[in-house]
Amino acid sequence: MLNITGNYTDLYQISMAQVYFHENKHLNPAVFDYFFRKNPFQGGYTVFAGLGTLLNALESLRFSEDDLRFLANQGFKADFLGYLADFRFTGTLKSCHEGDLVFPGAPVVTVHADLIEAQLIETLLLNTLNFQSLIATKAARIRSVAGVAALLDFGLRRAQGAGGYYASRAAVIGGFNGTSHVKAAQDFEVPAVGTMAHSFVQSYDNELSAFRAFAEDQPNNTVLLVDSYDTLKSGVPNAITVGLEMAARGHSLKAIRLDSGDLAYLSKQSRQMLDSAGLHHVKIAASNQLDEHVIKSLQEQQAPIDIFGVGTSLVIGRPDGALDGVYKLAQYRDKPRIKLSENTAKMTLPGHKQVLRLYNSQNQPIGADVVTLADETKPDIMLHSFEPFKSMDLHKLTAKPLLKPVMKAGQCCETQPTLKDIADHVQFQLTQMPQDYRRFDNPHEYKVGLSPGLKHQRDSLAQQLRRQA
Amino acid sequence: MLNITGNYTDLYQISMAQVYFHENKHLNPAVFDYFFRKNPFQGGYTVFAGLGTLLNALESLRFSEDDLRFLANQGFKADFLGYLADFRFTGTLKSCHEGDLVFPGAPVVTVHADLIEAQLIETLLLNTLNFQSLIATKAARIRSVAGVAALLDFGLRRAQGAGGYYASRAAVIGGFNGTSHVKAAQDFEVPAVGTMAHSFVQSYDNELSAFRAFAEDQPNNTVLLVDSYDTLKSGVPNAITVGLEMAARGHSLKAIRLDSGDLAYLSKQSRQMLDSAGLHHVKIAASNQLDEHVIKSLQEQQAPIDIFGVGTSLVIGRPDGALDGVYKLAQYRDKPRIKLSENTAKMTLPGHKQVLRLYNSQNQPIGADVVTLADETKPDIMLHSFEPFKSMDLHKLTAKPLLKPVMKAGQCCETQPTLKDIADHVQFQLTQMPQDYRRFDNPHEYKVGLSPGLKHQRDSLAQQLRRQA
Repeated sequence: MLNITGNYTDLYQISMAQVYFHENKHLNPAVFDYFFRKNPFQGGYTVFAGLGTLLNALESLRFSEDDLRFLANQGFKADFLGYLADFRFTGTLKSCHEGDLVFPGAPVVTVHADLIEAQLIETLLLNTLNFQSLIATKAARIRSVAGVAALLDFGLRRAQGAGGYYASRAAVIGGFNGTSHVKAAQDFEVPAVGTMAHSFVQSYDNELSAFRAFAEDQPNNTVLLVDSYDTLKSGVPNAITVGLEMAARGHSLKAIRLDSGDLAYLSKQSRQMLDSAGLHHVKIAASNQLDEHVIKSLQEQQAPIDIFGVGTSLVIGRPDGALDGVYKLAQYRDKPRIKLSENTAKMTLPGHKQVLRLYNSQNQPIGADVVTLADETKPDIMLHSFEPFKSMDLHKLTAKPLLKPVMKAGQCCETQPTLKDIADHVQFQLTQMPQDYRRFDNPHEYKVGLSPGLKHQRDSLAQQLRRQA
Repeated sequence: MLNITGNYTDLYQISMAQVYFHENKHLNPAVFDYFFRKNPFQGGYTVFAGLGTLLNALESLRFSEDDLRFLANQGFKADFLGYLADFRFTGTLKSCHEGDLVFPGAPVVTVHADLIEAQLIETLLLNTLNFQSLIATKAARIRSVAGVAALLDFGLRRAQGAGGYYASRAAVIGGFNGTSHVKAAQDFEVPAVGTMAHSFVQSYDNELSAFRAFAEDQPNNTVLLVDSYDTLKSGVPNAITVGLEMAARGHSLKAIRLDSGDLAYLSKQSRQMLDSAGLHHVKIAASNQLDEHVIKSLQEQQAPIDIFGVGTSLVIGRPDGALDGVYKLAQYRDKPRIKLSENTAKMTLPGHKQVLRLYNSQNQPIGADVVTLADETKPDIMLHSFEPFKSMDLHKLTAKPLLKPVMKAGQCCETQPTLKDIADHVQFQLTQMPQDYRRFDNPHEYKVGLSPGLKHQRDSLAQQLRRQA
């Protein structure tokens, strides 16, 4: 649906690229790290999402003739534009699996490419991974409190423009079961869901006629919206009438939908009314400004809701709205590079690195990752990034590397998993992770530390640069 | 950039449309209202944006063959799909001007079309108008505290996927001067801005070489990022060296950019250092998680910053992230329709309506709009929506209608204004609006009331439906 070309980027990438090109340094090898600094939603983890989208976009990324014409008008030079006209991304990506739980401070993706190529893909990479990871994380948090209820994405109308498209993809990764967004359902092979709005009911002379008309036309997909006039006095009784009529014809009313008022109270009353009429099979769906907090509260009150439709809060990742992922140069011409910044915590980790996830003797993740130099073996000790007296003994632990090649020479080097595979992988990891780390409120902090080799490299490089400055 | 087809919608629009079609009620005339319930950002107004985008999308909206194939697989019927294959939007839109200040509770757009057409465009309309109005409002709030400083949109990397594209358009409507997003600059004819990232500086052996290389390659567009190692000890001194070298060659260093640390302190120190070196013409740009609150504080401290680069907070409209605009059936087959809801405040306004903005004898807006029936003349009194003892005497006021035809029979019926025209219109209205209503914190509440005719129509319809229920 989105036609992503080379100009889907920040101008400074192109400005820098021209300098690299004219200085003839553009083909020198570089390594960039993608990482983030804070889990969203005051949660304990982040669900990594968007990788499949990114890989597809990188394989087909080109500068169009329109792009080049615009850049020429901006004053970019003909020789450089010739380079862009032939641009293909030919680099290597090492990455966590899509759907991995990832944590602040550890590289999630490393890009190994000619300096100019690595620079030119920065904005696209950030735009894709930051957003989908945000939404997948939100969806996973909602899933974590929704029990066995179905979760449906209803967000397109309040989504941030076309942002709603990939929000629907990411929602499925985090544990949603369907989307109202037809185009997303079509492209991502996700169930499309939805039946009626208030306008439908209003367009009939009375609610019962509206319900009957719908049930007549789509008897296999009837969900009746019951709050247009009065939920318990009008909507539910009319839905029961139609539910019984459908049953008499051998059809089955799928559900009623509550969209306003006190959902706990109304769902309990509705359930009772449906059950009393023998309509035990009719499910109850609820919508109206739901988020993980409201759903958690409804579940605690044992509201008999089978299906939650979540809109705005999901697709815009409220309240955070963005994952703070960044993309930093870690190595250039085989030499590690660092950025110091005025804020010490924003100092980067130099060099080509690996991330090891640590497991105990029962092969359970212990809640810690160690960032190492790429060619290091598992270290015996993990050091805190900044506090000199904090460390962890790793002798008794095993380690598995998280970063694996997913693209080589600009081509995907493994079959991409389906969205369902990715979603299953998320849930599997959540069951594996110790409970304290995935706690809904005030989770225990997952540890990300450095190997002695990496810490030494970072600190000596920083010292050297400070001495120069 | 975005290929919007008919399936860019919620499934329920299509489910309802099939019922309308099979019941042969699809061609009956309907009126829908677009309105919202709350100004974002605890502000006093909302900047209406996205209309131009919407009108263009409506003119070209079609169901593609892919769309129809998918819908067939979902079980929609052949006769109905035949209708969709020929679908064109042929309705009328009456709307506020793009860039008008608009307020909760009053219709901003009314759609007059066959029921089926009006229904099928709902999601696209909401998705477009809600998001751009949110971002234009955010941008206007930032503009209101930024004085004469230039405001640049740097947000694409943290934008909600392709949402960043229209965020850049809306930012300009609200008062921004340029964007880093090349594609948006290209398509919306907005200045494209941006020069270098930290990675550029890091890729050289030292900061001075990096600065020189850039100034050499793009002497007319050099903004040096000065915080890679140490702003005042390294970045600014090196920028001064290069600024003087450029001056000696007849070029002019445009600006330095601060991207971390205490921006008030660093900008004052940097200004002094630049001035002492005679580089009075070199501007100071600042970025790093800016929003209207930080910029307001910097301005109050008289930080000598000439250019603000605003990213995440702008393009995701933090903290709200969404405008709560809705689209409700107001009239069907020439009869007014209402939705009651469990929440009284969510009761809709029935019928074909107009909105009148009220002015005093000096032709100044007084801070109130009255919603009337479309065929009413200016009423003498305006009533509060829900409080029976609140009203306003309108005898001495004049009124101008806000809703005017912008699309007839599916075609735009006036030349669309340029983005600059729209942006100018926003600023003009803000200067016209009484100060209390545009106050940054705790603004005075703009009044939106009802004409006696409309209130009577709403209340009698509500009573009638409650009696039925």
